[in-house]
Amino acid sequence: MSESLAVTERSRLRRLHERGAHDRATIDAILDAQPLCSVGYVMEGKPYVTPTLQWREGDHVYWHGSSASRALRAGKGTEVCLSVSILDGFVLARSGFHHTVNSRSVTLFGTAFVVEDPAEKLARLAAFVNHLFPGRYEGLRPDHPQDLKGTMVLGLPITEGSAKLRSGGPNDEPEDYALPIWAGVVPVSLQIGAPIPDPRNLPGVSVPDHARKPRIG
Amino acid sequence: MSESLAVTERSRLRRLHERGAHDRATIDAILDAQPLCSVGYVMEGKPYVTPTLQWREGDHVYWHGSSASRALRAGKGTEVCLSVSILDGFVLARSGFHHTVNSRSVTLFGTAFVVEDPAEKLARLAAFVNHLFPGRYEGLRPDHPQDLKGTMVLGLPITEGSAKLRSGGPNDEPEDYALPIWAGVVPVSLQIGAPIPDPRNLPGVSVPDHARKPRIG
Repeated sequence: MSESLAVTERSRLRRLHERGAHDRATIDAILDAQPLCSVGYVMEGKPYVTPTLQWREGDHVYWHGSSASRALRAGKGTEVCLSVSILDGFVLARSGFHHTVNSRSVTLFGTAFVVEDPAEKLARLAAFVNHLFPGRYEGLRPDHPQDLKGTMVLGLPITEGSAKLRSGGPNDEPEDYALPIWAGVVPVSLQIGAPIPDPRNLPGVSVPDHARKPRIG
Repeated sequence: MSESLAVTERSRLRRLHERGAHDRATIDAILDAQPLCSVGYVMEGKPYVTPTLQWREGDHVYWHGSSASRALRAGKGTEVCLSVSILDGFVLARSGFHHTVNSRSVTLFGTAFVVEDPAEKLARLAAFVNHLFPGRYEGLRPDHPQDLKGTMVLGLPITEGSAKLRSGGPNDEPEDYALPIWAGVVPVSLQIGAPIPDPRNLPGVSVPDHARKPRIG
């Protein structure tokens, strides 16, 4: 793996480039912190965005869905733009113009491919479950072959894209600091709740450690 | 406002349609709960997705950015797909295949327009601040005309799109309920933190009520 992505015409950070990054460590940390992503693609010349979950394995991100999904069919060997974004807080400034958000985001560009080999597909889906809940997959009922057939797994090499990050307090105009206006940050974060057992769990089956906290955030 | 959006070829819910909705009450509630959105558009035949914040006023959603932004320039009078999604929890089933997430999402399609009139632009941006923090805008330093020039506001009529929702526990295969596997839901939610005052706030300026909780979630 190269440590930084090459800067291309579409991944070059034009605005507020001081908040941007092309290094893999920054990009990977954001991908690993937030599974929710938006996959953008073009169908008959029109834009489509599908929310789904992504997971990273090494130099690739993967996502999945039903083989019947038009979004995934359209993604087969076609260009996508995959976006992950995390809202960390609202930045309240002394003017409306300087209000902003603290956030972390990654945008990736590339051609999605379909994971066709059944054994590899199974391995990727197992990795997906274990990515969020380490060790869970091995304790599950093994997948049925027909389930695997109904699931499409797509991959995207992490080769073109960028990260963007903003943190800290407001940046106001110098003269505005003299105004008696409250400024600051209202943090937001993802909270993991206590696991809610299925009422149909068998007696004596206790909550596994992995269910107490998915590996996100 | 009509109470439901007409179902079109691209807004028709093909998969798991029992989880979908075209009624405005459902769509509006999701838009109002989560300002973070992804705007998808096509530029030179390729897909782009930009994360930004949206706010709803009546029958429109709006978003904004720098007039210099290529994403917003591209959105001027061009087709977009705007996507909002909220992750409510991970649903852990007894097989990998039946793992899913509880979530709420909205997908809107349409042609974005630019709010050109300066007075209307100002009114929209004020509404954006007050949408999240009711009453804040009136207490701020008034916007400078040049700030307004540097900001582009885009709007999209809420006319074509759909919502998708999933809640509740796992749905396993009938025979799998006999397995001693823990199943259930791991809830996730957005948490609002305590406001962090800017160290440069003037003495005696206290935290306004609106900063204790943005109107989201």
